[in-house]
This record gives sequence, structure tokens and C-alpha cells, in this order.
Amino acid sequence: MPSTWGKIFKVTTFGESHGISVGVVIEGIPAGFPVDMEKIQKELDRRKPGQSSITTSRQESDQVKIVSGIFEGKTIGTSLAMIVDNKDHRSEDYEKLRHVFRPSHADYTYHAKYGHRSHVGGGRASVRETIARVAAGALAKQILEQELGIVTIAWVDSVGDIFANITQNFPNSIEEVDQNIVRCPDSKMAELMEERIREVRKSGDSIGGTVRAVCKNVPPGLGDPVYDKLEADIGKALLSIPACKGVEFGSGFEGTKLTGSAHNDEFYVEKETNQIRTKTNRSGGIQGGISNGETIMVRAAFKPTATISQEQATVNDTPEEVTTKVGGRHDPCVLPRAVPIVEAAIHLVLMDAYLYQRALNPSWHQKWKKE
Amino acid sequence: MPSTWGKIFKVTTFGESHGISVGVVIEGIPAGFPVDMEKIQKELDRRKPGQSSITTSRQESDQVKIVSGIFEGKTIGTSLAMIVDNKDHRSEDYEKLRHVFRPSHADYTYHAKYGHRSHVGGGRASVRETIARVAAGALAKQILEQELGIVTIAWVDSVGDIFANITQNFPNSIEEVDQNIVRCPDSKMAELMEERIREVRKSGDSIGGTVRAVCKNVPPGLGDPVYDKLEADIGKALLSIPACKGVEFGSGFEGTKLTGSAHNDEFYVEKETNQIRTKTNRSGGIQGGISNGETIMVRAAFKPTATISQEQATVNDTPEEVTTKVGGRHDPCVLPRAVPIVEAAIHLVLMDAYLYQRALNPSWHQKWKKE
Amino acid sequence: MPSTWGKIFKVTTFGESHGISVGVVIEGIPAGFPVDMEKIQKELDRRKPGQSSITTSRQESDQVKIVSGIFEGKTIGTSLAMIVDNKDHRSEDYEKLRHVFRPSHADYTYHAKYGHRSHVGGGRASVRETIARVAAGALAKQILEQELGIVTIAWVDSVGDIFANITQNFPNSIEEVDQNIVRCPDSKMAELMEERIREVRKSGDSIGGTVRAVCKNVPPGLGDPVYDKLEADIGKALLSIPACKGVEFGSGFEGTKLTGSAHNDEFYVEKETNQIRTKTNRSGGIQGGISNGETIMVRAAFKPTATISQEQATVNDTPEEVTTKVGGRHDPCVLPRAVPIVEAAIHLVLMDAYLYQRALNPSWHQKWKKE
Amino acid sequence: MPSTWGKIFKVTTFGESHGISVGVVIEGIPAGFPVDMEKIQKELDRRKPGQSSITTSRQESDQVKIVSGIFEGKTIGTSLAMIVDNKDHRSEDYEKLRHVFRPSHADYTYHAKYGHRSHVGGGRASVRETIARVAAGALAKQILEQELGIVTIAWVDSVGDIFANITQNFPNSIEEVDQNIVRCPDSKMAELMEERIREVRKSGDSIGGTVRAVCKNVPPGLGDPVYDKLEADIGKALLSIPACKGVEFGSGFEGTKLTGSAHNDEFYVEKETNQIRTKTNRSGGIQGGISNGETIMVRAAFKPTATISQEQATVNDTPEEVTTKVGGRHDPCVLPRAVPIVEAAIHLVLMDAYLYQRALNPSWHQKWKKE
Repeated sequence: MPSTWGKIFKVTTFGESHGISVGVVIEGIPAGFPVDMEKIQKELDRRKPGQSSITTSRQESDQVKIVSGIFEGKTIGTSLAMIVDNKDHRSEDYEKLRHVFRPSHADYTYHAKYGHRSHVGGGRASVRETIARVAAGALAKQILEQELGIVTIAWVDSVGDIFANITQNFPNSIEEVDQNIVRCPDSKMAELMEERIREVRKSGDSIGGTVRAVCKNVPPGLGDPVYDKLEADIGKALLSIPACKGVEFGSGFEGTKLTGSAHNDEFYVEKETNQIRTKTNRSGGIQGGISNGETIMVRAAFKPTATISQEQATVNDTPEEVTTKVGGRHDPCVLPRAVPIVEAAIHLVLMDAYLYQRALNPSWHQKWKKE
Repeated sequence: MPSTWGKIFKVTTFGESHGISVGVVIEGIPAGFPVDMEKIQKELDRRKPGQSSITTSRQESDQVKIVSGIFEGKTIGTSLAMIVDNKDHRSEDYEKLRHVFRPSHADYTYHAKYGHRSHVGGGRASVRETIARVAAGALAKQILEQELGIVTIAWVDSVGDIFANITQNFPNSIEEVDQNIVRCPDSKMAELMEERIREVRKSGDSIGGTVRAVCKNVPPGLGDPVYDKLEADIGKALLSIPACKGVEFGSGFEGTKLTGSAHNDEFYVEKETNQIRTKTNRSGGIQGGISNGETIMVRAAFKPTATISQEQATVNDTPEEVTTKVGGRHDPCVLPRAVPIVEAAIHLVLMDAYLYQRALNPSWHQKWKKE
Repeated sequence: MPSTWGKIFKVTTFGESHGISVGVVIEGIPAGFPVDMEKIQKELDRRKPGQSSITTSRQESDQVKIVSGIFEGKTIGTSLAMIVDNKDHRSEDYEKLRHVFRPSHADYTYHAKYGHRSHVGGGRASVRETIARVAAGALAKQILEQELGIVTIAWVDSVGDIFANITQNFPNSIEEVDQNIVRCPDSKMAELMEERIREVRKSGDSIGGTVRAVCKNVPPGLGDPVYDKLEADIGKALLSIPACKGVEFGSGFEGTKLTGSAHNDEFYVEKETNQIRTKTNRSGGIQGGISNGETIMVRAAFKPTATISQEQATVNDTPEEVTTKVGGRHDPCVLPRAVPIVEAAIHLVLMDAYLYQRALNPSWHQKWKKE
Repeated sequence: MPSTWGKIFKVTTFGESHGISVGVVIEGIPAGFPVDMEKIQKELDRRKPGQSSITTSRQESDQVKIVSGIFEGKTIGTSLAMIVDNKDHRSEDYEKLRHVFRPSHADYTYHAKYGHRSHVGGGRASVRETIARVAAGALAKQILEQELGIVTIAWVDSVGDIFANITQNFPNSIEEVDQNIVRCPDSKMAELMEERIREVRKSGDSIGGTVRAVCKNVPPGLGDPVYDKLEADIGKALLSIPACKGVEFGSGFEGTKLTGSAHNDEFYVEKETNQIRTKTNRSGGIQGGISNGETIMVRAAFKPTATISQEQATVNDTPEEVTTKVGGRHDPCVLPRAVPIVEAAIHLVLMDAYLYQRALNPSWHQKWKKE
């Protein structure tokens, strides 16, 4: 199972849900960068289970531990490993799932692919794997912020059919997003969303939704056509998050209904800065696979959590048809916890694109790096 | 500019729109496979410009030439190169675009990223680059078909706001799709789509749309979590096609509105084959990032062609605000030609996932390979 | 700092000499393989410091801990992480080296490359990094042995100018090699070597030497021309071991003095097996970059340990010329401990080549795999 | 068959000896670099067959053709393809080798690995494949020279047991090397070498030898521990050249006989430049896998050409024992033509290491790049 992301800023992850630990090794880190461990921990806290009354009740402190790559507070250019231990795993809860495949889970496909698998807690398919990405992304975020001033903010845009009403007034900070436990900056809709989540949990069910994200202050020039276009890499990063089934950039699926004359983003010259800008942003900040200096805009679809506590028809590995009623603890809605994961995924893509661009075009770097 | 796709079945491409040739080098091809060159040419013909009255009038025969990797009709395991020459390029048409950035094109972002660029015909950002993928994908298709029986069929599902009405009766062959020039198997809606395309062309405009694709007979077990999930890799492959701005799998964005109990695909045991199957297919044939044996279902959004012949406000590289009216030849709607490109992209992903799975699990291969 | 080896069986390592731990993450492991942890520990024991009176006196038990990738004793195909904690580090010994570059060490080059570095214990340049390779190689060894019957044996062939006299009677097991602490199966010369090592240690000096290795039962067909020829990949693996400055295969440097008629290995058909064999083995088991079924033969040169306790002229980072006398503990001769590292390096190469070949040629695998 | 070299400056090659063409695609080229095509052709001329009376008589002009990646004389950052056509191939010469394996060639191993192979002219195992590396290396050379002032010079150091006497007075230019057809700057020994080559050719035989190379003006800081140490990557690059069976750096195998006190390179501060230098250079310009600013020194062993025109015992693919007498044209000694290949291999490694270092450490680049 390949578990590596990136060409230069390379992230390799490991760890099953109910093993000892999950962790990440990062190669390609510039030396001399002062790492703020508290900021990394903060992102893990935003992701961790049990953080609010609408997430799973599994209790994990998810304290991150640095194993290598830092000396006297700064990176030394070597591979940096971070580890988070698993604590509140109750493997015994899963014994009855040893031979049964939960519907819409990865149980059956892992069985078909690998033969031998861990049936406890989803093993490697568990969302605990995303700890590793969030930790790595939190490091990338620090570097991108310091070097280029990039700010990425994601939020819950819909839960079920309840949509936030945020079209232009994008949030300016993750604090705005975190002001409610749903992580939706439209506080009015957030209330309805929260209610909906409590409702489905009560009925032993779950619900899907969408996350939107924006990246501000991305200079023009990041992203590498042909195959590594920025949409392609961000799209892959998001689609590799458990439960994500769709992504769209800028005008996305709706934009396909327009004509070119209605859809094209006309350029103009911004007076104050003499920068080339676009009047509209249907491209979502990316043209030809490369950032164009406008805000990057992306939306990701998350299906309802597959784990529900209602009885369902399924099969076992004999195979025979059986019914199953899954106990254990789970999120009635993954969306609030998906927010920091989406941000981390985007940071990993931007960081790798940034280092690649730095390798190929030092004068671009001279022009765009912050003082 | 990285131009490589894949881990084992590795595809590296080259060529600008108005250079001598475009081409592809493929590493990781099993030896002894009898290549049907006519079938490769056929896919290129489905992609080529000037193929019908609703595509660009640029005339290119796009004849493919094998340079290496085949001996006496069969692959020899070495890197296989295919080249297609550019013939009908009229570089002079582009002189007035030397300093002007066309709206929603890659002109400005290439300038910002690379400094020095080719302004003729979009250079490497041109859709001519996709010749290379289509040729490589056509080879992958042959191998996948012979070894596993996989059949991939894409079609135009919408043009502007005109949608085909195809929910369950998916086409069974590319011939069904190719029966009209729009490549939409719903012949009634295809007529309306064709009309719409002629309309926008007449007004010097363009129009977007969506492509759907299904892959049949994919055995359970292809796709590699964590980062290389099948949705992630197919998503990346599609999002790297010029003009693609969104993808969704199975129930996609609509599915996010459902509850888990309504969305989960229950398993059952198929009597005749004793295979594990799902009653519904909201997962789109992929669970936990791995194929589950059901039909893979994906949809891709293509924005309207950026090139239109109406006058538009834009800027030059001074930068100054100017207007531009692009001559040259272009597709009023990329969708019909996108169909074989989408199929090729999917084939490249499946082929690579197949070889990786073959490396790791020979008994899986024994079980699923065709006689 | 890239720290990854391999294309399919991918090994990523981390850890500085005086950090918390060193470790390795392995991707691309076949699922269902029963891992013998004792055998992995045994290889680490052969590598560990303080194992005999002629190695460094640093005391480390180097107990390996599995963090992921194994469930109920067998691999599950997920990334497998192993960690070894550092215990007996005395960072305070190194304070006086904070600004001083030890001659022929990596101190100055790390400083020039990274700016900020760990001056304690060589940081990432320490031979402690090889723990990770030895652990990963020990896993590869088990798989190669079970699947193909491959046996790799390395030994100390020279210490200084004292050479073992082993030309044809290669050792048949690592036990033969381990019968003395020098790890030279020519017991007579081993005594002289041991004496020489004690001598240089006494004078605060060190000494170089060579390791030879043979791989038996490698089927014909492993190794991937063009760039990933078996000599190229094994050569790289060995040259990446600290202190290794040269490698040669088969007849090596001496063979360059011969004519083709004297050097070529003539083929014959082995009666009992009907296998194609060579009468001589000047090719060292590799032709055209691919194993030919004969014993693979390689030799590696290790320079004398750079750390000596005599006073030496050097510079600091001002830069100023100073003298230094290194305390700390170190190996007077790296050769005995290099033996398991060389074996591990070779196993990693063969394992990756094996999986790649399995991906591309399943019928080769059917032919050569052990029952 | 993987045919790719490099992490950022990625070189992918294709082409069999008797196919239509051989070629190379290079990704990761900085944009805006003015390519001197004559200099690339010059390196190919130094490599081409038939260039002198002591090389093979196959006549190939080896004219290189640029297919992509350059616009108006400068690179545009896109993948750059170069192609050289094969002209003087006489495939009919090889018909009798369809089923026979030439001793010490790649015929048998390709057969064992791939099953189906090209028996004409060695197919992909032919030295014609090196055209691609030489072309790519010649481009890397131009960039390295302009950006860092690096100069790499290789020469023939021995033919059979005739050794040049060049210890300190390394040649200063490739013109010094090219002053005789053997490419040995010790003109006295060059005469003896040439005589020896004519002698073995006359007797239908061949002879081996060694090439040495030096790289001057390499700033400290290139090369990436752990696995991608500069010795490891250069070693791999050289060992992947056909017929190369060994490499050594600096003091190499001889250095293993020394003690640390005799071998260590003491540092001093160079007055004029205030640079840190070493008094001796037994490290061969590389410490800890990273360049230290001294001249890089490497030696490569080339076995005698396997193709000889004397009758030899061998086997066919039945298998049966037969004799073979190879006609065709071949080099009695590959060494003179190996010189530009060795230089190209080293340039590819340095170029990739340079771009990686540029990505990770922009201030290093500011310090070391030429005005």
C-alpha cells in the first residue's frame, strides 16, 4: 500500500486505527525553519475525536511527538518524523466484525485486495490515518505562511440539504470558522446543521455534506502542468480523504452550463500594485493548471458516514447473507472534523508545488517571497 | 514541467501545439503483448480535430508512428515511444498574441511561472498534448481488455443545461456512443445538444458540459489507499485534462444530501457466481479507494472553451489593459472530443493500479485474470 | 533530505544519532506474510554497537518495535513501521564540536549544505541511520528466502592490507561468517585482522577494509535496464552506506586488464536441470544489468573510520584553523559491523527488483517461485 | 523496463539499436535557458561510432533533432525531447543470432526476463541507448557551467594493463583529452594503448580498461544523504553504462589499506578566498555524501567488449550447446567512446542534485551561483 504524497516535500504515513500509533515521515524540508509545535498540536486538536458533542465519543488526546528532524527548535533538513499514539481503542468491540463486511465500508474491498486484513476499527482505512496528514499539513502551513503569506480557510458549506449562504464574504480566519462546533461561518445555518446532526445521531443514522475552501495570497505560478496541474493535485489530495466522493474548482459543475463569453474571467491591471488581476473568479484561482494570483476556490463532497447503528443487510466472508448492527463509536457527520483535514491536504499540495517552483525558477522566488 | 503519469505503467509526454510533433514514452509495459496499432489509431481519430462539423476546423490526420518498444508486432518490455506530427499549424495567426493574455487561458499563468513561453497555439497548454495520453491509454485499454475484460465507455452527458437522460441503461459499447457526432447516446437530447453547439459557434461563443464514464468488469481489488485511492487517481487524471474543473464518483455531490441508511450499498451474494455484490451502487464501484467489483461511475465537468471570437477586455505583458479578438480555429464545445480523452485517462489509472496489484498479490491475479 | 529507497518495496527512514529514535516505514509489502520478528532482531544484533571487544563501546540494545503493518503476526499490506530507540547517547560529549568540523566527517558538508545542523554524534550522518536499513532488509530477506530461496552472505575480505584467501569456497551461511568477531571466514587471516584492529585502536587510530558478498539462488531475470541495472542499484545501495567509497562486480577492476576472449563467460546446458549456466562467472552473476542465474558477486571498499582520537588540524565555522582531539566512542574499524548492513542493502535491491518483475511478468513468477 | 533518471531533472529514454530512432525526454528544465545545439551535437560526435580507426565501423551521423521544449532558441520549461535516427543498421547480419545467446551479452538475460526480445544489434541493451544520456547530459553541462562554473573532464586511464601516469596534473579541458583518438592525456601511454587496441582488433578480440573523471568548481553542498549521496548517485549512473563493472571515489579501494590518521583530509582556511579547503583530497571531493568544494574524483572499470569475432562455445534457446562466431561491427575497446558517456552521466547527477538543493536552500543558491 503506497502511502506517500509529494515530489519534493514528500510525506509518508503509517498506522492502523487500533495499532500502537499513527505517524508521518516528511522528507524535503528546508533546514533552519523554526517549528511551532503548538500550532501543529492545535490543528490535531481541531481534527481529534471527542472534541464536541456532535463528534464520535472516542477519546483520544492525539498528542504529537517529534522523533527526528528538529534540533534546538529548528528543522535540520533531515526527514522529520511525528508520531501520535492510539489510546482509547476498544478492539474487543470489533470481534463480531471479524468475518462480516460493513456496507459501504472498506472491509470487503480490503479483503478482496489483500486477503489478510485488520478488522478492528477499519485498520488503515480508518479516518485516524488522517492524523498524519494533518500534522504534516500543519508544518507546511507554517512554511507557506512565513514564506509567501498564504492563508487557507475551509468550512462546512452544507450538511445534508442545508446549505450555508456564503458567496463572497469568505471567512478571513480559521477562528471565524471555529466559532461554532459545526465549523460553518454562517451562524444561522450552522444552528440548523447542528440540529440536523443531532437528529440523525439520535436515529442511529448519519448525514453527508460539503466543505468549501479558499486559499488567499497564493502568488501566480504555482502548479505544474501537464499531469500535476493544481486542480489535479488538490483534487487528488481531497479525493484521497476518507468519504470524499467529489471535488470542483471555481464555477465547477454549475459553470459547465455557461457560454464562454459569460464564463471567461477578464483581466485588468490593479492600479495600486500594477498586478494583473481578473474581474471575476470563475476559474477559482487556477488557469492552465497554474495559480493566477486570485483566491483559489474548491468544494469537496463527503458522503454520509458509512457506520450507522441501525441494522443492515450485508454478507460475511463465507460468503453468506447476514445482518449486522454496528456498535462502536462513530461520527454522525464527518464534516466538522473534515475541515482541518481539507486544509492540510491543500497545504501539502501547495508546499510541494512551491518547492518545485523554487527549484526551477529562483527569480520567481525572489519576486514573490515575503521580506 | 513534470509530464509523467503512473508508478509502474509510466507515461511521459512531450510536445507543444505548434512544434514539430507531440509524443509519449511508456515504461513498464509487459513484454510479448501483441499491439493492435489500428485500435490505437482509431482512438486518436476519435480525438482528432476536424472530425465533424461541430469541432475545430484545424486539419490534422494525427497518424501515430511507433518509434520503439515493439519487435515483430509484440512489445519487448522496453520503453515504447509513439509520435504524432503536427501539420496544420498556422503560427502566423498567433503573432498578435505574443504579448497579449487571452482571458481564462493559460497565457498569463505560463508567463508568470516560466517567464519565457511559446505564445503560439497555447504551446504545451494546448489540447494537442492529450494526443499523447490517448495513444498511451489506447494501449492500456488493449491490455486491460485482454487480461481482465475491462470495458470503459464515456459519453457526453450534458452540453450547457441540456442533459441526457441516462440513469441505468448505460451504453454497452463505444459504438453506441459514436452513433452521433455529439457522442451522447440519448439521441433525442443529442440533437438538442448539437443544435446548441451550432448556435454558440455561430455567435462566436462556446459552451461547457459534462462527460460521464463507466468501467465495467473491473474486478474487486484495484486502487491503492491511502493517497492513491482509485477515486483520487482517476480524479487527478481527469482534472489534469484541459478545461476539466470538477469530478464526482457514484452519488457524488447529490449523495451528500442523503443519510447513511439511505446511501449505504447493502451487500448480497450473487447466486450464479457466488460473488459478493451490492444491491445499489451509490459508491460508484469504489469503496475505501478500492474497486468493489461493481461498475465504476464517474462524471467530469468541462468549462466552456476559453477561446471565443468575440471581442474581450484583457491585458498585455507590459501590463496594459487592451482588447483582444482571437482569430484562429477552435472547438465551440470540447465535450465530443473529450470523450476518448476521458476514457484514456481512466485506462491509464486502471492499468497502473493493475500492475501494482499484480506485483503485490500474484494469487489475486491468478483468480481474476481471464483465461 | 530524501531518505527513500525503492520503487515498489519503498523504504523511508528517519532519525538522528542522538535523537529519540531511528526508524523506518516500508510501503509495498505483500499482505499475509508471517513476519519473524526474532530474525529481524538478530540482524540488528549483528549490526549493533558494543557487540564485541573490537567495536565501539557505545551500549545500545537496539530493540526493534513494530508500530504498524502487522496484524495477528502477518503483514496486512499496509505501510509497516519499525522503530528503535536511542538510549546510550551522551550529547554532552559533543558540545566542544558545536563549531568545529572533524576532518573527513560530514560536519562541514552538512554545514555548507543545510546551514543549521545537529553537531551531536554525527546527526543524520551517523551510522545509526543504518539500523533502519538493516531492519527493512531483514524483512526483505525473509520474503526473498521464502519465495525464491535467495541466500545472501557477506564477509570481511580485508582489513588494511590483510586479505582473506577466499576465492571459490564461499561461505554457505552467515553462521560460518559469524564464527569470529571480525566476520571473516578465513579464520587464519581473521586472527591477523583482529590483531591489526586492536593495534590501531590502541594507537587511537582506525583502519579501512573491504567487504565481499555473494547472493545464491537468484533466478535469471532480476534487475531492470537501462538505469536500474542490478549492478547500478546494488552499487548505489552500497555506496550510500557511510564510509563506502567503491564497489565492483564479478571480475571488477582486475577484469579490465583482460581481453574479451579471456573474460567472456561461455554458456553451457546443465544436464540435471536443463538450465542455461556459465562455465565461469567473471560477470558476477549479472549480464546486461539482469541476473543470469549465477551467484551474484560484489565487493565494497570502506575507508578507515574518520573518527580517531589523535589530535588533528582542522577548522571551525568562523572559519579559523584549530586543532581537535575527538573524544566519544567509535569503531576502530567499521568492517565487522558493515557485514549485515551490506547484506541488508542487497536484500532491499533484490526485493524491489523482484516485485517489479512480478508486476511485469507473472509467468516468470510462476516458473521461478518456490513451491 | 524503467528508463528514467533523476528526481527533478528527469530524463526518460527510449529506442532500440536497430529501431527507427533513439531519443530522450527531459522534464524539469528551467525556462529561458539559451540552448547551444552545436555543443550538444559535439558531445554526440565524441560518442558516435566510426569516429576513428579504433572504433566500430558502423557509420552513423547521429544528428540530433529537437522535437519540443524550445521556443525561439530558449527553453520554455516544458518537457524537451531530442531524437537521433538510426541509419546504418544491418538487421540481416543478426538473423543467425535469433536463437543464439552470445557469451557475456544481454541476450540470455533479456530472454529469461522478458520472453519476447529483439535479437538484432542488442536491442535496448545496445550502447546506442547511451546517445540519449549524452544528449541530455550535454544540456545539463551547459546549465551547470553557466550557473555554477562546473567543469567535468573524463579520460581513458588504462587500456588492459597499460596505465596512464596522471596523478595530480589533471587535464584542464576536454580538448586536452581529445588530442588523441584514445582520449588519454598522457600522450606517451596513449600511443601504447592505441597499439594494444589495434592488436586485439587484429586478432578478433577486445580489451577492457578504466576511465577517470574529475569535476572542478563544484561548490560545497551538492548531494543528498541518506540514499542519494553523491557517490551513490554518480556510482549508479556510471554502473548503468553498458560494460561498467566497478566504480571508486577518491582513494577508493587503495585507500582501504590506510589508517584514519593517514587517510583523513585535514581542513585549512584558504587565505585568498576565506574558503574552507582540505589539504589532501582522499575523499575525492565528497564527504558524508555531499560535495565539499574540492575536485570530485571518480574511476570506472569497463570490462572488455563482449562481442568478439573469434569462435566461442555457447547455447541457443532450445537450449542446446552450440558455437557462435559473431560477425557484425563492434568496438575492440569501448573506452575512447565511454569518455563522453561518463561525463554525461556525471552531469545528469550533478544537475539533479543542483535543482534539489536550489529547491531546499535558496540562500545557498544566492551564495554560490555565478554572476
